[in-house]
Amino acid sequence: MNGGEQTIIFHNKPRIVAGYGIVGPKEGEGPLADYFDEIAKDDLFDQKSYEKAECKMHLLAIERAIERAGVNESDMCALLSGDLLNQIISSSFSARELDIPFLGLYNACSTFGEALILGSIMIDGGSMQRVACSTSSHFSTAERQYRYPLELGTQMTPTAQWTVTGSGCSVLCREGEGPFVAAATVGKVVDYDITDANNMGAAMAPAAAYTIATHLKETDRKADYYDAIVTGDLGIFGSEMLHQLLLSEGIDIAHVHMDCGKMIFDEKQKVHMGGSGAGCSSSVFNTYFLQKLHSGELRKILFVPTGALLSKVSSLQGESIPGIAHAVAIEVE
Amino acid sequence: MNGGEQTIIFHNKPRIVAGYGIVGPKEGEGPLADYFDEIAKDDLFDQKSYEKAECKMHLLAIERAIERAGVNESDMCALLSGDLLNQIISSSFSARELDIPFLGLYNACSTFGEALILGSIMIDGGSMQRVACSTSSHFSTAERQYRYPLELGTQMTPTAQWTVTGSGCSVLCREGEGPFVAAATVGKVVDYDITDANNMGAAMAPAAAYTIATHLKETDRKADYYDAIVTGDLGIFGSEMLHQLLLSEGIDIAHVHMDCGKMIFDEKQKVHMGGSGAGCSSSVFNTYFLQKLHSGELRKILFVPTGALLSKVSSLQGESIPGIAHAVAIEVE
Repeated sequence: MNGGEQTIIFHNKPRIVAGYGIVGPKEGEGPLADYFDEIAKDDLFDQKSYEKAECKMHLLAIERAIERAGVNESDMCALLSGDLLNQIISSSFSARELDIPFLGLYNACSTFGEALILGSIMIDGGSMQRVACSTSSHFSTAERQYRYPLELGTQMTPTAQWTVTGSGCSVLCREGEGPFVAAATVGKVVDYDITDANNMGAAMAPAAAYTIATHLKETDRKADYYDAIVTGDLGIFGSEMLHQLLLSEGIDIAHVHMDCGKMIFDEKQKVHMGGSGAGCSSSVFNTYFLQKLHSGELRKILFVPTGALLSKVSSLQGESIPGIAHAVAIEVE
Repeated sequence: MNGGEQTIIFHNKPRIVAGYGIVGPKEGEGPLADYFDEIAKDDLFDQKSYEKAECKMHLLAIERAIERAGVNESDMCALLSGDLLNQIISSSFSARELDIPFLGLYNACSTFGEALILGSIMIDGGSMQRVACSTSSHFSTAERQYRYPLELGTQMTPTAQWTVTGSGCSVLCREGEGPFVAAATVGKVVDYDITDANNMGAAMAPAAAYTIATHLKETDRKADYYDAIVTGDLGIFGSEMLHQLLLSEGIDIAHVHMDCGKMIFDEKQKVHMGGSGAGCSSSVFNTYFLQKLHSGELRKILFVPTGALLSKVSSLQGESIPGIAHAVAIEVE
């Protein structure tokens, strides 16, 4: 990849040899219930705080993914993780329990895409043999950190999304069986001057549109090269906005587009525009999509986790909400 | 690098073709004043808030480093950045102003080491030709985010350190002139059960000791292979603790050890144990150390930024403070 380009083609086919996805009870009542590897009965995970609960869930996802890959913790070269908590404590405290070199990441809800890209770069270039990529989010930790105390029972605004309680981890290897990472497009920060912190879909859709359009252009592909173009957590509003933005550039993805945030909940679950959070795309990817890739129902997907790069302070200081999206092309032979 | 190992040897010599370091007025009155590329007259950088000031400083460091490398923004393949603010907004909002693919990182004050390692992996493996690595911190944003409102005028405890207002950026290239990254050791999270959030040196020293010992063991080197072993921001107490911890393993680094946190301030500046922050090691590395490497006064250094992986919430919930340190071996021919 040269300057001015954003897409990397991987020549050594980094393999996703295992994935694991774990979610909370509400997600476990949604349409993807049969796909998740584990559904917690209680979103406290037997811990004393929601933050400790998120950390336990995150750690479980990593440990089980490594176990499923048939390797030991000591076989792993690196752990690439991130989450939405201040100073990514869910990731850091998970890493504390593991004997694996740790590289912490933060690109909001697109972090899982960032992790897959960095992991693939490491494996493709030969510097590492085996890495774990993971993210998490938790409704109760996100709600009280970014919005209001849970006890207030604040109502969601119509365009709001529900933060997913979930975590997913993929194990990438240089050798092994499984879908492979064929290419990736690293996102740039895109800002359409959206200031409504209750409309993340609108803040992220322009970044998703930009990354998808760039990926198709740089790889000289049409949207239907892929069986599915899967965004992270644009939700209902953001997905519609994405379609419109791409249509204006002559790209129609509506027939192949799926969104993890739309898929994970049912409309009856009162989540307004759908699910969101760094654990939304990672828990859905490592279960539903890996299973569909293994079964051959999907053979080529473009996975595009999306993130909104705000903080409470940036919003209070009048800043708009920039978005970012990373695209990862995953295929099976 | 195989599982169980932490050290990568780079074969394609990623070059640090340029660096830029900018600091606040207090740092500009310290012993390294003559080395910094830029010293701000006012730590608000003409902005309306300290957060916006940190972002402006961070952006300046990136832009000037790219300029100094003699390339354009559009020649860059990726920006690898992190900072201490919640959701790393200093990095994200800097990236918003730049037309460069963005990968956000967080490993607390060791983030600059993480960035150099990831950048070197990308260049060594051939996936990217040219990347920028940067971090920042700002006394006033850190103080009010992690500790107390500035207006309180809270006294520092004896083991506390002063967060550096500073930012540094390195440009790494596959081709070009300059010191090269010869090897790197990715850190693991190490927790010695330190719970005093006013003694970061103690929380980070065990991680630094572990990473340095691992690096020397895996490369089969003695400490005096290096002209300097440079830790990020252990400060006076943490440096002493590091020496003791390594001595107990039979490794004596006292004669080659330097610490950016100790170097950046003078004892008269009332900063107690010294400087700290993600911008401490990056501003000192990109000025003092790059200049010493260029002049040949130093020919081989092991640069070890150190981080404390806490958040306000983790400390309030009774967690100890885990540490991490990444080592980057930088040499000149």
